[in-house]
Amino acid sequence: MPDLTRLTLDQVHALAFQVLGAQGVSEPQARAIADTITAAERDDCKSHGLFRLPGYVSSVRSGKVTPDAVPQVHELAPAIVQVDGRNGFAPLALQIGCAPLAEKARRHGIAALAVTRIYHFAALWPEVEVLAAQDLVAFAFTATMSYVAPAGGRKPLYGTNPMAFAWPRTGHSPLVFDQASSASARGEIQLHLRDGSPIPAGWAIDAAGHPTTDPAAALAGAQLPFGGYKGAAIALMIELLAGALIGEVFSFEASALDNNDGGPPVGGELIIALDPVCCVGHGDRQGQLAHAERLFANILAQEGTRLPSDRRYAARLRTPTQGITIPQTLYEELQQLAAQQTS
Amino acid sequence: MPDLTRLTLDQVHALAFQVLGAQGVSEPQARAIADTITAAERDDCKSHGLFRLPGYVSSVRSGKVTPDAVPQVHELAPAIVQVDGRNGFAPLALQIGCAPLAEKARRHGIAALAVTRIYHFAALWPEVEVLAAQDLVAFAFTATMSYVAPAGGRKPLYGTNPMAFAWPRTGHSPLVFDQASSASARGEIQLHLRDGSPIPAGWAIDAAGHPTTDPAAALAGAQLPFGGYKGAAIALMIELLAGALIGEVFSFEASALDNNDGGPPVGGELIIALDPVCCVGHGDRQGQLAHAERLFANILAQEGTRLPSDRRYAARLRTPTQGITIPQTLYEELQQLAAQQTS
Repeated sequence: MPDLTRLTLDQVHALAFQVLGAQGVSEPQARAIADTITAAERDDCKSHGLFRLPGYVSSVRSGKVTPDAVPQVHELAPAIVQVDGRNGFAPLALQIGCAPLAEKARRHGIAALAVTRIYHFAALWPEVEVLAAQDLVAFAFTATMSYVAPAGGRKPLYGTNPMAFAWPRTGHSPLVFDQASSASARGEIQLHLRDGSPIPAGWAIDAAGHPTTDPAAALAGAQLPFGGYKGAAIALMIELLAGALIGEVFSFEASALDNNDGGPPVGGELIIALDPVCCVGHGDRQGQLAHAERLFANILAQEGTRLPSDRRYAARLRTPTQGITIPQTLYEELQQLAAQQTS
Repeated sequence: MPDLTRLTLDQVHALAFQVLGAQGVSEPQARAIADTITAAERDDCKSHGLFRLPGYVSSVRSGKVTPDAVPQVHELAPAIVQVDGRNGFAPLALQIGCAPLAEKARRHGIAALAVTRIYHFAALWPEVEVLAAQDLVAFAFTATMSYVAPAGGRKPLYGTNPMAFAWPRTGHSPLVFDQASSASARGEIQLHLRDGSPIPAGWAIDAAGHPTTDPAAALAGAQLPFGGYKGAAIALMIELLAGALIGEVFSFEASALDNNDGGPPVGGELIIALDPVCCVGHGDRQGQLAHAERLFANILAQEGTRLPSDRRYAARLRTPTQGITIPQTLYEELQQLAAQQTS
């Protein structure tokens, strides 16, 4: 067990904001990233928390990402809004796109947000949850870099390509899931490599295309989609939605463009929002919400079940008072980064 | 090998139309069902072909489905159209909804079609393919009856809940997938039961919640989602989209309502269509199409891969000249049904 440092959520936000500011990230960009990192720590999603901060810093230092990009909003059609991230990080572009997307969804019943030229390696649940908090049903899709073999193939082509979905609830936080279309996160394989433990069967193939439980062979080979060819079809769909549909790169193109600085790849994200009350003729939103609760009650009536977002919400009840912990070594690294002004 | 009867596609259509007409199904309803069944036979999707016809007949005879329902179109919001199937079969309602959905998607960039009060047990690829043929990107979602256990649970709750996706291509038929969120189709388990062969591990659990390869135990227990909890999340999302979102029943409610006549359950379907040229700022549709082709070329460059819809399209090249075959016993059953006027 490594030594741990305990921080309040306010300290998490301040530390992230300070580190990014010291690296020349503009105040709006830094605040949006700090919001995203703090939300991840608050919900005990450690792999998207402060652990990500050195990667953001690397991508500023390498010159890959524009640290003071000002995202631009364009209306592409009555129900389609684009936010051009102008080669900045994703969180600010996503925050900026949320309001026009919600406004369009309410006006037309359904709308889409195409976010382009962003560097993204956060989770997707924050952007769909914020829409569900405004009583919209939302989907989000993004591609990453080439890690996952297509169905029947042996070499990496698709990204780990997550999709997220959010459903507003009455008297509860929204139901949200956010899942990679790969069998495992890439970081989980890296953790097995670090710990010298085999990975579960079904996660990956080696460079020759054979199933492997060796994490080094897996990283040199290809990850597998979840659930065989059906997960591969989801991954392919996400390549198209977050790539060609919105004029952005596919995962294999993002890999070719990336400088391997350890930060996020360039790419796009598609978000679709529906106003649920527009989808029923009777306009009875309370009845619609209550109906969905009957499904959730039927799920939870079975022993051993939980709803997709319940673990995060349980953490969210604890961390505002108890704070969170990070490894002492990471804390020291971040303290150093906060003190180092870019030249 | 059972004795087979060979039919042309025109004979398939005529036979389906004749059987349905003899049972009192109205001409527009019968023609739409015959179109759907003929498309399935043309693409060698036998489980959605003439094999389904006795189920349609059962649901007319039992009084469950209104055989001459006239679907009604309602605009619920500028980009949301509803087709109320008025307790008729799905194919006509879906055909009627396609034009207003396409028109709205082109006008607003994205639109949705909520089809309600329909009896559906066909594939979903026909409705997304017809939209892709009009150069739209499309999704479809529908729920069924309680067959699949939720993540961590032991009892059936979700339907086999298929989703379909279509992407228009240049110089090719659209890329389309249509997949259940269960590990297998229910019919595949029934075929194993008939043949006395075990089902693959991972398809189902028995009534006590233990993994089983016994098809009878599987049918008495619960099917499993594909890919574990991630497939279960897709199944849950589809319950919400095809159920509460559009004011329709969940799978467990459809099961409770059904009279087990062997025909389709009542329910809804959600279709979303995007106009791809509205999703890019440059408006270069040819460049967008060409970009997607580069992804497909990269998939197919790997040995052992194919695109999701390729098997169906290969069949579609053969069947217009070679015709199709069905078991002689089924042919005789359908001939009898065609001759039997309802009293």
